[in-house]
Amino acid sequence: MVRAQEQPPDWRVVDARPSAAVAEVLERLLAPRVAEAARLDASFGRQVAQWLAATTRGGGRRLRSAFVWWGLRVACPAPPPGTVAAALTVGAAVELLQSCALVQDDVMDNSPVRRGQPALHVLLGSTRPAAAGPGALGFGQSAAVLAGDLAMVWAEDTFADAHPPPEVAAPVRRLWSVLRTEMIAGQYLDLAGQADASHSATHALRTAVLKSGRYSVARPLELGALLAAAPPEVCRVLRAAGGAAGLAFQLRDDLLAVWGDPAHTGKPTGEDIREGKPTLLAALGFSRAAARPRGAALAVLRRCYGNPAAGPAELAAVREVLEETGARRDVEAHIARLVGRASAHVEALPEAPDARARLLALVRLAAGTVAPADAPPAPAPAHPRPARGGSGPGHAAPQAPGPVRPAGPQRPDPEDRTRPHARAAAPHGRRPLRPPAPKPPGTHPNPSPAEEPS
Amino acid sequence: MVRAQEQPPDWRVVDARPSAAVAEVLERLLAPRVAEAARLDASFGRQVAQWLAATTRGGGRRLRSAFVWWGLRVACPAPPPGTVAAALTVGAAVELLQSCALVQDDVMDNSPVRRGQPALHVLLGSTRPAAAGPGALGFGQSAAVLAGDLAMVWAEDTFADAHPPPEVAAPVRRLWSVLRTEMIAGQYLDLAGQADASHSATHALRTAVLKSGRYSVARPLELGALLAAAPPEVCRVLRAAGGAAGLAFQLRDDLLAVWGDPAHTGKPTGEDIREGKPTLLAALGFSRAAARPRGAALAVLRRCYGNPAAGPAELAAVREVLEETGARRDVEAHIARLVGRASAHVEALPEAPDARARLLALVRLAAGTVAPADAPPAPAPAHPRPARGGSGPGHAAPQAPGPVRPAGPQRPDPEDRTRPHARAAAPHGRRPLRPPAPKPPGTHPNPSPAEEPS
Repeated sequence: MVRAQEQPPDWRVVDARPSAAVAEVLERLLAPRVAEAARLDASFGRQVAQWLAATTRGGGRRLRSAFVWWGLRVACPAPPPGTVAAALTVGAAVELLQSCALVQDDVMDNSPVRRGQPALHVLLGSTRPAAAGPGALGFGQSAAVLAGDLAMVWAEDTFADAHPPPEVAAPVRRLWSVLRTEMIAGQYLDLAGQADASHSATHALRTAVLKSGRYSVARPLELGALLAAAPPEVCRVLRAAGGAAGLAFQLRDDLLAVWGDPAHTGKPTGEDIREGKPTLLAALGFSRAAARPRGAALAVLRRCYGNPAAGPAELAAVREVLEETGARRDVEAHIARLVGRASAHVEALPEAPDARARLLALVRLAAGTVAPADAPPAPAPAHPRPARGGSGPGHAAPQAPGPVRPAGPQRPDPEDRTRPHARAAAPHGRRPLRPPAPKPPGTHPNPSPAEEPS
Repeated sequence: MVRAQEQPPDWRVVDARPSAAVAEVLERLLAPRVAEAARLDASFGRQVAQWLAATTRGGGRRLRSAFVWWGLRVACPAPPPGTVAAALTVGAAVELLQSCALVQDDVMDNSPVRRGQPALHVLLGSTRPAAAGPGALGFGQSAAVLAGDLAMVWAEDTFADAHPPPEVAAPVRRLWSVLRTEMIAGQYLDLAGQADASHSATHALRTAVLKSGRYSVARPLELGALLAAAPPEVCRVLRAAGGAAGLAFQLRDDLLAVWGDPAHTGKPTGEDIREGKPTLLAALGFSRAAARPRGAALAVLRRCYGNPAAGPAELAAVREVLEETGARRDVEAHIARLVGRASAHVEALPEAPDARARLLALVRLAAGTVAPADAPPAPAPAHPRPARGGSGPGHAAPQAPGPVRPAGPQRPDPEDRTRPHARAAAPHGRRPLRPPAPKPPGTHPNPSPAEEPS
């Protein structure tokens, strides 16, 4: 078996660019995997495995593996080489799992575009343009489901190769099991909400909690902390912080799916509207519109939200209702509250102020609340997808104030935006865990499921 | 984590009914998994997880896990408890992987029936009959893809919980990786052959080798042998035996898909014909028909094979061509040669004559060449599906000579048919490995890929 990480870099090197360190691990894994697939069958290797590897290589900003890394670092100011290697390999496994989610979700949502390129099922289908496919699914769709399965196999093998410190191996394995189950459950809730044409805020929040709160942020953070053998209270605080941050991440993605610029999101805007995605934004829009004495706004949503044939005029009408009823504004406010809550949790952690600052910057980036001071005007990077079933990891960078500069010839690492200008001091000794910060008062109609649905 | 196997049974107990021992392991795993899913979301637990568990519980005769067991036993006359536990847990993981394959393949093939019951995507779709589904896929199809993913997660977690003896853990893990990759590659070749309307015997054999030769038989046998720390030459012999036996298994399934009795197969007969499955049977039919001076037979195949609208008259016409060109007879002859080859390999093994006899009986059962002396006339059990993408594990029991008796109130374990009446003596000491038996002379047009395509 190819070892993912022969000589792990020093933690300071990873700190500088976690995404580059994870990409290096992935690179070492992908080439032999593609070669193995090609030995079984040339077209399986060249098309399924090679294109899956390309999808994974182009995997946005690798936010999930960054959360694994900063989860480790806030719990461990100076991780030893074995732990660094384990965290990077677990991070690579998480990214491969996300490849599975993206590829299969695009099939389920019939999304033709991903990060501005044809989705994998479209690419695979183009190899057999005349084939109607063996059943209800076309060849490209079936082959993409298999590509997703292959991504999961690669993820599992990578995780098995991470070899965490023996004393934490069992809880890390257990958490990996939970993370994957939550990923699948979140996507199921998303499908069910669409099929039921659900406009329930509770359902939207439950879905977002599983898909993004837990799968994309809280569990990766917790995996990192567990790799550092962090005490249970630190894991609990990170879980709470990650749940709030991940939900904010999803709510931002929901906004970008409606108002984002396709040039930056990499996905056509309006897919969520046409698909009738059960988002909090839509749920608030429906409930506000229903409360109006005159039913014009509600009629617009009923006619256009979840209508696959909605054209530009219908999309514009939906946007207007969502603005004018205050749904957009309330989602923005909820994001701000969630980021505040996540920050209070992170600030309560006792160690590694430098790592805490980086984690907070990452949370703000994911939630699209990067203040200009934190975010030097860089080329707008592709916004990472918060979870499977969302409207795409290609969503634009947070629409922070300030001009977007065109990308230069050498595109800087978008993750640099997570590093505050004023770096905190070097890691210092332990300090006691502060009591968790009180939750900011919420005005949300259903605030409780925003953190934990069950 | 729930341990799969707290107190493993004695190997003699497992010998009596391997399928029951694996079913017991599965039972211990499935209940907490379903409960965990229900804690995340009630309908995810009740529908996706519960129905997936039911599909797995009804998993036919558990041939793949039986091959793991007999692979262990032919290499190890008296396995210690830890090895017994590992083999049963690995066997359960293999069965869960097969659940993933079956559920997703039924979506890809648009097969509505599995083992005489509605397929999982049909069941899931029935919970939201009005939903058109979010995209090209209906809700049931998308949810079934997710159920397949969940089965793979369960399989991976089960495998991780097998804890093989430390000295073989790495090669066992490596083989598990190979087995899953071959499963996916085999299904991909099946899809590609259908999409290309391939009538190439070479393609059909390559597909069958990956799907059934390796994934369903050779790799499970090898996994068992590796768990017993068998020497490389024993693994090699089992790989060769399993490759031949698994190919025979697939060729039998191809015959049953065309001529089997739906009451026994659990699948409507003719699906392979309508889907245009790229089988050796069809490839031989096409090449023989094409060699005829008059083109009537070829015209029938061209009109009906791969025609989703083919009705009873068209199916009957295809059957007649496949009979009359000798394609059916040649496939039968090839099965007999493959079973002979597999038997010669197994007989060359040095140990455990009792286990070798049981393994050979299992091979004959899978290949549908059970002689009446070996097979007491028992109720016809559902024929296990050889691999993902085949036409169904519900295929009839081998069409051996002799009447089929109606099932009694207590249906005997079909696996009992694998036990020859005259049991061999108890395991005795080691004997040297005999040189591999020479291959019987083959008359097949493409004999070489029948064993190894690359």
